[in-house]
Amino acid sequence: PNSKLPDVKTTIFTEMSLLAQQENAVNLSQGFPDYQPDENLIKYLGNFAKQGQNQYAPLFGIKELREEISMKFNLQYQVDYQPDSEINVTTGATQGIFTIISAFVEKGDEVIIFEPAYDCYEPAIILNGGIVKNVKMLYPNYEINWNEVKNLVSEKTKMIIINNPNNPSGKILKQKDIDELISIVKNTDIIILSDEVYESITFDEKPHLTLAKYPELKERTFVVGSFGKLLHITGWKIGYVCAPSDLMNEFRKVHQFNVFCVNTPAQFAISKYLQNVDDFQSISTFFQTKRDYLKSALKETPFELLDCEGTYFLSASFGAISDKQDKDFCYWLTKEHKVATIPFSAFYKDKTDEKVIRFCFAKEQETLEKAIEKLLKIK
Amino acid sequence: PNSKLPDVKTTIFTEMSLLAQQENAVNLSQGFPDYQPDENLIKYLGNFAKQGQNQYAPLFGIKELREEISMKFNLQYQVDYQPDSEINVTTGATQGIFTIISAFVEKGDEVIIFEPAYDCYEPAIILNGGIVKNVKMLYPNYEINWNEVKNLVSEKTKMIIINNPNNPSGKILKQKDIDELISIVKNTDIIILSDEVYESITFDEKPHLTLAKYPELKERTFVVGSFGKLLHITGWKIGYVCAPSDLMNEFRKVHQFNVFCVNTPAQFAISKYLQNVDDFQSISTFFQTKRDYLKSALKETPFELLDCEGTYFLSASFGAISDKQDKDFCYWLTKEHKVATIPFSAFYKDKTDEKVIRFCFAKEQETLEKAIEKLLKIK
Ligand SMILES: CSCCC(=O)C(=O)O
Ligand SMILES: CSCCC(=O)C(=O)O
Repeated sequence: PNSKLPDVKTTIFTEMSLLAQQENAVNLSQGFPDYQPDENLIKYLGNFAKQGQNQYAPLFGIKELREEISMKFNLQYQVDYQPDSEINVTTGATQGIFTIISAFVEKGDEVIIFEPAYDCYEPAIILNGGIVKNVKMLYPNYEINWNEVKNLVSEKTKMIIINNPNNPSGKILKQKDIDELISIVKNTDIIILSDEVYESITFDEKPHLTLAKYPELKERTFVVGSFGKLLHITGWKIGYVCAPSDLMNEFRKVHQFNVFCVNTPAQFAISKYLQNVDDFQSISTFFQTKRDYLKSALKETPFELLDCEGTYFLSASFGAISDKQDKDFCYWLTKEHKVATIPFSAFYKDKTDEKVIRFCFAKEQETLEKAIEKLLKIK
Repeated sequence: PNSKLPDVKTTIFTEMSLLAQQENAVNLSQGFPDYQPDENLIKYLGNFAKQGQNQYAPLFGIKELREEISMKFNLQYQVDYQPDSEINVTTGATQGIFTIISAFVEKGDEVIIFEPAYDCYEPAIILNGGIVKNVKMLYPNYEINWNEVKNLVSEKTKMIIINNPNNPSGKILKQKDIDELISIVKNTDIIILSDEVYESITFDEKPHLTLAKYPELKERTFVVGSFGKLLHITGWKIGYVCAPSDLMNEFRKVHQFNVFCVNTPAQFAISKYLQNVDDFQSISTFFQTKRDYLKSALKETPFELLDCEGTYFLSASFGAISDKQDKDFCYWLTKEHKVATIPFSAFYKDKTDEKVIRFCFAKEQETLEKAIEKLLKIK
């Protein structure tokens, strides 16, 4: 058959996780925890199913969960979103992102993305006939050159996709970035998709600046969040999107015919669990400990570490070890040293290769130690 | 913002379920059970979560579940699908359908659908720039006029969507329909989307003829199935699609960037449950009892019943009661007699109104009796 996505392959995360399995390697590639979530969450899941929560949820998501999401925004960011008209639960953040893009991007529309970019934006844009305009954040600092963005913006710009904190670079937006973004979009109709799935994971007291905090941005922005990342349950596939009601209405038109609604017992379990959470800081502390361990251990190896301000990914240059292509290096590292990682080139349209790879540290201490033991053998 | 779907409203199922709630009416509108699934399923869900199945599943679905789906096809229909290359688990059948349409339909492509049609096909086609070509199955028999189909087929026909058993009419395809379909598509590149979510619910010993059974169709067909319907767990949102590997490859390109993967503990629970099921007949018997009760009870009312060969919906003309528009009649019936149903006009692009409404009988005997008590008061 004719392909609408001739260039798309299986995602790098699937490829590397499979390779890790085949090679019996420590898997620091795909981003998911290898430990259990809070046992209360699991207990609630079983209980709600037992109590009869096994049929269709409302298409917006259950009221209880939308209210918890609203309260979370209030508590963390003093931002208001209306549960009924501005919040929608999704089958993971990915489905939220795909649905936003499908609801707005039409043939010929241009969408600005920042590279290295998470791999799900581009295919969704192309599938909808859109044109990807990519801005490269450059090694080793991954700062955004806002002048480049300004020059790319035109009548055709339908959407700008922000990923903050950024996967894979671990970079977070600063106030000056926000100011630049505001000055670019004000007086335009540009919609912003702000993928903030790692919002609760920032380090060294650096705050997460949600775009929802800035009225000039909020009015045009979809904020995308993930309970998979927040609560260590990537396999439950529950995320959410928030936006002003005029944007949300268009989102819901597509959402209802994409998945209609989202797993019911999981929504109830998460909403009950969140009722007892009044501090979303501790997750940063939890991951900072892991990051710091990995950082200090990797300093004993020839890898050169990049800054990691947020996310559960730490990245490093392997230039001192090899001049292989980064993907070849990842294959070599998995096969020869039994540690699986992700090559940065997978996050670039043109496969830019700065000799950088990404380590996921959402892993038990024991797993990280096993990986380090192996990595210390590299000369 | 500009709307890609200016004509789309909230689905009729959501609208009528909400109205039922407001009016404290018996809800025979939206298709979902009001009783619990097998308690083993629920037990397994809790257990797999406890045992650590809470992270990303593989993007195709877990191997165990794909194998059970393959065995189910073998057992019920003596049809072979390869678990690795021809089966994919989805977030309910709806996500499967949306993803199939998104993967293949491009600007200007024509897609043939049969009306009355389930409401998710058309918006997905339009969103992808396709053109809906609708064939009306006419009241009261809802037979397909295959000559009309033949005349609609052209170079531009990308896809034909079959829904068998048909929601809402309860009609199932016969051998002569299959023969006509084969003669129409052979020697073309037309893809068939066969929505068979009610495949296990057919009555009076009439067999379900899956399109997968006919090699001339199977080679070009996506068969879509639903564990929500099969196991009375519409809120778990687990379905599947099966297709030859060349079609499946294109499906997966979109699937992986739409939802990436599907709820992990639910997949494990369903696959374990299916290991102990070796008979998919009993579900027809279960629903036939409910259909027969509703049929015989409704015969005491002024409604005139339509044939119901499959699905868990029974439809009836209210022409002898009122000359209201069918949707107005549904509102009236909900408000005045406290029974919510679905108007057939919602299943037509042009809102064709034959004065027919749909009752869902996937309900406890007690619920059906309560509805009947109310309906018997209609003069
Ligand atoms: C959806 S699989 C990828 C998980 C992830 O977020 C990552 O590894 O970057
Ligand atoms: C996805 S909500 C609709 C449920 C259903 O299949 C129906 O009522 O027809």
